[in-house]
Amino acid sequence: MRIGVLGTGMVGATLASGLVGIGHEVMMGARSATSDKAAGWAQAAGAKAGHGDFAAAAAFAELAIVAVLGTATLEVARLAGAQNLAGKVVIDTTNPLDFSQGMPATLIPDFANTTSLGEALQAALPGARLVKALNTMSHRLMVEPARVPGVHDVFLCGDDEAAKAAVIELLRSFGWTSFVDLGPLSAARATEGLMPFWLRLMGRFGGPDFNYHMVRAE
Amino acid sequence: MRIGVLGTGMVGATLASGLVGIGHEVMMGARSATSDKAAGWAQAAGAKAGHGDFAAAAAFAELAIVAVLGTATLEVARLAGAQNLAGKVVIDTTNPLDFSQGMPATLIPDFANTTSLGEALQAALPGARLVKALNTMSHRLMVEPARVPGVHDVFLCGDDEAAKAAVIELLRSFGWTSFVDLGPLSAARATEGLMPFWLRLMGRFGGPDFNYHMVRAE
Repeated sequence: MRIGVLGTGMVGATLASGLVGIGHEVMMGARSATSDKAAGWAQAAGAKAGHGDFAAAAAFAELAIVAVLGTATLEVARLAGAQNLAGKVVIDTTNPLDFSQGMPATLIPDFANTTSLGEALQAALPGARLVKALNTMSHRLMVEPARVPGVHDVFLCGDDEAAKAAVIELLRSFGWTSFVDLGPLSAARATEGLMPFWLRLMGRFGGPDFNYHMVRAE
Repeated sequence: MRIGVLGTGMVGATLASGLVGIGHEVMMGARSATSDKAAGWAQAAGAKAGHGDFAAAAAFAELAIVAVLGTATLEVARLAGAQNLAGKVVIDTTNPLDFSQGMPATLIPDFANTTSLGEALQAALPGARLVKALNTMSHRLMVEPARVPGVHDVFLCGDDEAAKAAVIELLRSFGWTSFVDLGPLSAARATEGLMPFWLRLMGRFGGPDFNYHMVRAE
């Protein structure tokens, strides 16, 4: 599949490399078509990897992944262009975190509790089939679930059932087996709201290689 | 041990009955010393059960548990009396949830994100050795972890290490085996922040018999 990964940071690079590794054609999107980081990644990642600006990566994509800081998400959506993502499955991995006051980070109030960054991103990309997913774990775990032993979960939500099914199928190819579908995209309020907890745990555990598993009665 | 359970609702009654069931003397605290609900509970629960107003239950207690709605928590602390809980371990099971707009409930902004109800309760009870715990699960699971099979976790936090150890010891007697200590009481921001997620899951799963387990790399 042709996948556009919007973002050149650790999350974007890890996802992009992981997707190339399982056979997809990936274009990394950056602010500039001549981004050194995106060009460097594409060169290292081989023949199936390319790069371009956000709009080019969005236009290239059959499926797109937004993998930028929460504070940049809506600007990146504008730069990518709603028309370039209309009708496409878009995975939103972002979180509305404010790191400006140090750790532990807090949620940006404008995108928390009674609303979410996921919903704001969907509003900025009205034709996109948005699925909130992967935003509750370390970037390395996203493409390598076996870093944490046993069964643990991907939480996802979105308003398009077929889009969620497509995301689950893509993630199965990384080895994910356990998915918890929280329902409509408004559930992004809930999964984004896990991040303060996750960040506290990372501090207590001394690293990011952990994940949630919801255990249920039979 | 003499335990004061502040609250006559489902959470309070379940905890109080569970504690009597494992041999503790329990006084249920209510707004009124003649509360019908508290009197009815005490009569049904047998010789080790009593009831009184919040202040009486707090004064009786060697260890107290606050088990009321988040919207009532600080008033109950005032009625219980800080002097009656000074030096005592107090388990705070409350969550700052606003159900007034229907489901899913939201967090009360005054006690979320950059602060928490747990911290506000500690400020209202300055001499108490507060431990935030049990606020991330169904009331029945609190005293009967085997309702959900396998290993799943109690999350707790607080500023008094010995108090946390005492709470862990008490909970082990209900069969709990897995504890995740998130550190200082400020981590109540994180665990209270799980509730919107938990409520969404309850809706999706069709019931409250589930719990979190944090899975870690070796």
